[in-house]
Amino acid sequence: MKNADYPEALKSLVKELKRMPGVGPRSAERIALWMVQSRDARPAEIARSIVEVTAQIHPCSRCGFFATEPVCVICADPAREIATLCVVEQPTDILPLERTGAFRGLYHALGGRISPLDHVGPEDLRIAALLDRVASEKPAEVILALGADVEGEATSSYLAAALREFPVKITRIAQGLPAGGGLEFADELTLSRALSGRRAFEH
Amino acid sequence: MKNADYPEALKSLVKELKRMPGVGPRSAERIALWMVQSRDARPAEIARSIVEVTAQIHPCSRCGFFATEPVCVICADPAREIATLCVVEQPTDILPLERTGAFRGLYHALGGRISPLDHVGPEDLRIAALLDRVASEKPAEVILALGADVEGEATSSYLAAALREFPVKITRIAQGLPAGGGLEFADELTLSRALSGRRAFEH
Repeated sequence: MKNADYPEALKSLVKELKRMPGVGPRSAERIALWMVQSRDARPAEIARSIVEVTAQIHPCSRCGFFATEPVCVICADPAREIATLCVVEQPTDILPLERTGAFRGLYHALGGRISPLDHVGPEDLRIAALLDRVASEKPAEVILALGADVEGEATSSYLAAALREFPVKITRIAQGLPAGGGLEFADELTLSRALSGRRAFEH
Repeated sequence: MKNADYPEALKSLVKELKRMPGVGPRSAERIALWMVQSRDARPAEIARSIVEVTAQIHPCSRCGFFATEPVCVICADPAREIATLCVVEQPTDILPLERTGAFRGLYHALGGRISPLDHVGPEDLRIAALLDRVASEKPAEVILALGADVEGEATSSYLAAALREFPVKITRIAQGLPAGGGLEFADELTLSRALSGRRAFEH
C-alpha cells in the first residue's frame, strides 16, 4: 500500500503557485487547498482575471508603462508637459512618482539598468528609444530617476553621457535623508550624499 | 490632470489576488505586476491550473478527501483496512496522517467541527454520513482524530455519544508532549493531558 497523496491536478497547481513572487511552498499549498475547497466562483474569477490581464495589458509603445491601448493613459493625456521627460528603470517605478502629484511631465521606462553581472548591457534597455524620443520630442529637461545603488548610478552616468549631444538639461533626483528618518538611522553613504546635496534654506 | 493609475484589469487582478489566504495588498500587487511583466507563459499556466483544479477535483463521496473520480484513491484502495475508521475535521487533515505511514484504515472528514459561535451545528457536518458508514461498513474501531481545542473536544464528545449505539470501539488520538518538545515549552493543559494519558513503559 502506498500512502495517499493529493490528486495530480492539485499538486501541479501548488507547483505553479510557488512560482509567484513571495509565495513559498507552504503558502502555495494553503492557497491551492483554499481554491479546491472554496464553494464559490472566486478561484475561477482569479483565473479569468489573470487571463484578462495578460491578454489586455502590454507596455506602452512610447514610455513603457502598462497600457491597454497602443499608448498609455499618461502619454495620451494632452495636459501632460512634453517639456519634461522623467527616465525610470521599471514601469512599476512610474506609479510611485505619479502618487506624489509632484510631476506633470512624461516618463520613459528603460526596462532595467545596466548590470554587467546580470549580462544586461545598454542594448538590452530602451536607451535607443529614449534618444529617439529626445531627438523628436525635444524636451527641455530629462530627469534621471534611477536607483541610488551602484547599477542605478552607472546607468545614470551612461545616460548622461549619451544625452550630452542633445540641447537638453539633464538632472537627477536628489539623494539624502528619507522623510521621517532621523540621522541615527541613515548610513554613511546616505549622509554624505545628503551633505553634498545640501541646498540653500528657503524661508 | 488626474494622476495616472494602473489599467482597470490590473487593479481588478490585485483585488482578486488579495482574496487568497495569506496574501495581503502588497504581495497581491507584487504578484499582479509580476504576471503582467512576465514574458513567458507562466501566468497563463497558473490560470489554466486553477481552472483545472476547480473543474476536476471534488470531495470523495465516501470520505470527503480530494478526489478526481467519484471515490478518492484511499477509498478505492483494496489494501486498506475497512476495520478502522479515522474521523478528522477537514480533508486537509488526512494527508498529514497519511504521511506518518502509521495508519492503514479509512478516513471520514466531517468538513469542520461543531462551533455554536460560528453557527456550525452537527447538522452542518457530515455526521449523518458517518453514522451511515459505521452502520453499513461495520468497522471494529472508530478513531477520533479531531483538534485538541475546545471545539474539537466538544465535537469528539458529541460523536462519541452518537456512536455509542453501535457495537464499535471508540478511541481518540493521544494528547501530550509534541515530539522534540521539552517540558519547559509545554503549557499546563498539555502537561496535565500528557500526565493523565501516561502509559506503561515498554522495553
